[in-house]
Amino acid sequence: MPSPTPRSQAQALDATDPLRSLRDLFDLPADLIYLDGNSLGVLPKATAARVQQVVQQEWGRGLIRSWNSAGWIDMPQRVGDKIARLVGAQAGELVVADSTSVNLFKVLSAALHISSADNTNAARKRILSERSNFPTDLYIAQALAAEKGYELLLAEAEELPSLLDDRCAVLMLTHVNYRTGHMHDMAALSAAAHAAGALVVWDLAHSAGAVPVDLHRDGADFAVGCGYKYLNGGPGAPAFVWVHPQHADRFWQPLAGWMGHAAPFEFTPGYQPAAGISRYLCGTPPLLSLAALECGVDTVLAAEPLGGMPALRSKSLALTRLFAEQVQATCPALTLVSPTQDSLRGSQVCLSHPELGYPVIQALIARGVIGDFRAPDVLRFGFTPLYLSHVQVWDAAEHLRQVLDSGEWQRPEFMQRQAVT
Amino acid sequence: MPSPTPRSQAQALDATDPLRSLRDLFDLPADLIYLDGNSLGVLPKATAARVQQVVQQEWGRGLIRSWNSAGWIDMPQRVGDKIARLVGAQAGELVVADSTSVNLFKVLSAALHISSADNTNAARKRILSERSNFPTDLYIAQALAAEKGYELLLAEAEELPSLLDDRCAVLMLTHVNYRTGHMHDMAALSAAAHAAGALVVWDLAHSAGAVPVDLHRDGADFAVGCGYKYLNGGPGAPAFVWVHPQHADRFWQPLAGWMGHAAPFEFTPGYQPAAGISRYLCGTPPLLSLAALECGVDTVLAAEPLGGMPALRSKSLALTRLFAEQVQATCPALTLVSPTQDSLRGSQVCLSHPELGYPVIQALIARGVIGDFRAPDVLRFGFTPLYLSHVQVWDAAEHLRQVLDSGEWQRPEFMQRQAVT
Repeated sequence: MPSPTPRSQAQALDATDPLRSLRDLFDLPADLIYLDGNSLGVLPKATAARVQQVVQQEWGRGLIRSWNSAGWIDMPQRVGDKIARLVGAQAGELVVADSTSVNLFKVLSAALHISSADNTNAARKRILSERSNFPTDLYIAQALAAEKGYELLLAEAEELPSLLDDRCAVLMLTHVNYRTGHMHDMAALSAAAHAAGALVVWDLAHSAGAVPVDLHRDGADFAVGCGYKYLNGGPGAPAFVWVHPQHADRFWQPLAGWMGHAAPFEFTPGYQPAAGISRYLCGTPPLLSLAALECGVDTVLAAEPLGGMPALRSKSLALTRLFAEQVQATCPALTLVSPTQDSLRGSQVCLSHPELGYPVIQALIARGVIGDFRAPDVLRFGFTPLYLSHVQVWDAAEHLRQVLDSGEWQRPEFMQRQAVT
Repeated sequence: MPSPTPRSQAQALDATDPLRSLRDLFDLPADLIYLDGNSLGVLPKATAARVQQVVQQEWGRGLIRSWNSAGWIDMPQRVGDKIARLVGAQAGELVVADSTSVNLFKVLSAALHISSADNTNAARKRILSERSNFPTDLYIAQALAAEKGYELLLAEAEELPSLLDDRCAVLMLTHVNYRTGHMHDMAALSAAAHAAGALVVWDLAHSAGAVPVDLHRDGADFAVGCGYKYLNGGPGAPAFVWVHPQHADRFWQPLAGWMGHAAPFEFTPGYQPAAGISRYLCGTPPLLSLAALECGVDTVLAAEPLGGMPALRSKSLALTRLFAEQVQATCPALTLVSPTQDSLRGSQVCLSHPELGYPVIQALIARGVIGDFRAPDVLRFGFTPLYLSHVQVWDAAEHLRQVLDSGEWQRPEFMQRQAVT
């Protein structure tokens, strides 16, 4: 059991934090300690003005002309190129489009098709994933598996390597687990999948902007990710999709909408996919939300002169370590769910309690400490090094201790379930 | 050949226009005559403030709590209920989600599934559509047909009834043709499809908010539509999807994302679709764009006390008739593509010229008259009765005459193609 850290130590870490200036990029409520950036990132200061510019100038004045004059037509690629810098992809390999779920459908369709084409002598009829993967990923895989005659096999993380065999077509994983914060070893699992003749799809929802990712180095075949978590793109921001260049031109993904056509404004009746990743576009993108996403991505890129993702990772680990150790030292009722080993932990700390998870989170929210509850028993806290200080993290742990020790979580209003938890 | 209408007659029509006050709902550039509301509707005055509220208050202050406190979680249904009033659907039958292309994939998947389930003794392996349907609809159908072993048969509008036979699974049509403005008889074609044992999917992209639609009365099985055209929802606004209640619970559409789950926040690994139309949701919706869409829909609903869609239709027909007749009287070089019979014409007028379409549109845009060019030869003009006056339409026809008579379309800058046409 770790011993408690004094608040002065957190203050000392803040005084020498090389990233502390980045907090000024955000419009943060003064009275909040926001530990839910892994569910919805905070508002960048630049976003409101940029969205107003899109609404009032580009839409209001420019109207339809803005597709050319304001560069709307290239935004999925332009913002995609920025995100590519955060995940080890090259410019031109990644686009912003649709939602994570829809993009997963595209790449999983592609992976199954390519697996089938490359394994004409083998019966690879299995999609392998993790039982505690984010449900929408499993739902999409379940639907596709049913449609195409595949089996969706769900296993625990430690069982995955032994299940990579000649029955496996695709390994589909979320890099950082939404419920535990456990981070897979992308390089090792990608290599194991390839050694078994399987392709690998990575969901970067809790990784992009949170932990270093190097899709090329670590052998990914396909990746999707979320715009509204660590990329600070705003509620429901569009998602992104990446396909390894060796696969990109091999398949016409089934959501063959006009924005993925080689020449959408020729209005020809037959589909001809664009070259490369642009064929993973489908319909017209939601421009207001897309413009906000670009502002969010820019806040992460603003860390580049200060050390970039490695510096963010270093601070993130310090924050999660501080919180996990402090809670272990002061909140014996809670069980740490997230890994203590740095290399296995994403940018979040999850705790569990068999009964109290929901009301404790509500009591914390009432104190201005925002985490979230993930059914059935997880208290989840995300740590965004762009805008969190060590003292805030120390204070959050202290609030949690007080909520538990005082029993204030027992108030009736904290028991009442809301639509979104 | 009609004789020219004097401008004074257009002025007289404006003076007695019962809808003229609706123009005040919009933030319109003073120097423009905007005849492209069928491609991107104009900015409602309420939108900028509402979007700022979502950005600065709901996102910036409320953060994750706004899913409950600001009602974000119910927005796809709430805005859907408003759109339902414009298309003859009941509350609870229609949701806002994704893009038109993605929604078409969902409902066409459902239609093929239901057709197959209901025709176990017949080999209905054909999707029938119109050759000049909007390309993205054909691309989506082409991809689905290839995946599922169907034939996509494309025909001219007048050939459709004779091709509705026991080989046809689904008739998929856009109600108002994007290129000609021709409007199908929804009731007659739906009845013919049903008589042949086929289901019918209607794309309302150029109908919702533009012409009266009554999905229940006219026998539709499935419908999708666009938020950024006549609904004034802003660039890339999310689309909508409607499924007849008799079909809604019969199929798990393959884009089975978590927002379509019966209990998304239970985070269970197995998919259980929500009852009714909510199962046609997939991922997290783009809230900024969705909020803007609601403001746009409200502008159309604002016509309800003034006569609603019938009044809008009456003015729309007067505007398109005026423009078509004036152009026929004064621009002999152009051929009218849109139907002259009111009941066959949507809210647009299309003209053709074998060579000059593109530069003439560019010359008009330079004069502040915005229409668009649709390859290979169509000059397209959309007429939105919410904000257009008869005098503006008269003036637009006069600008077109002057561009042609003066030869100013020959300037080199009008010949140069742009990315988006």
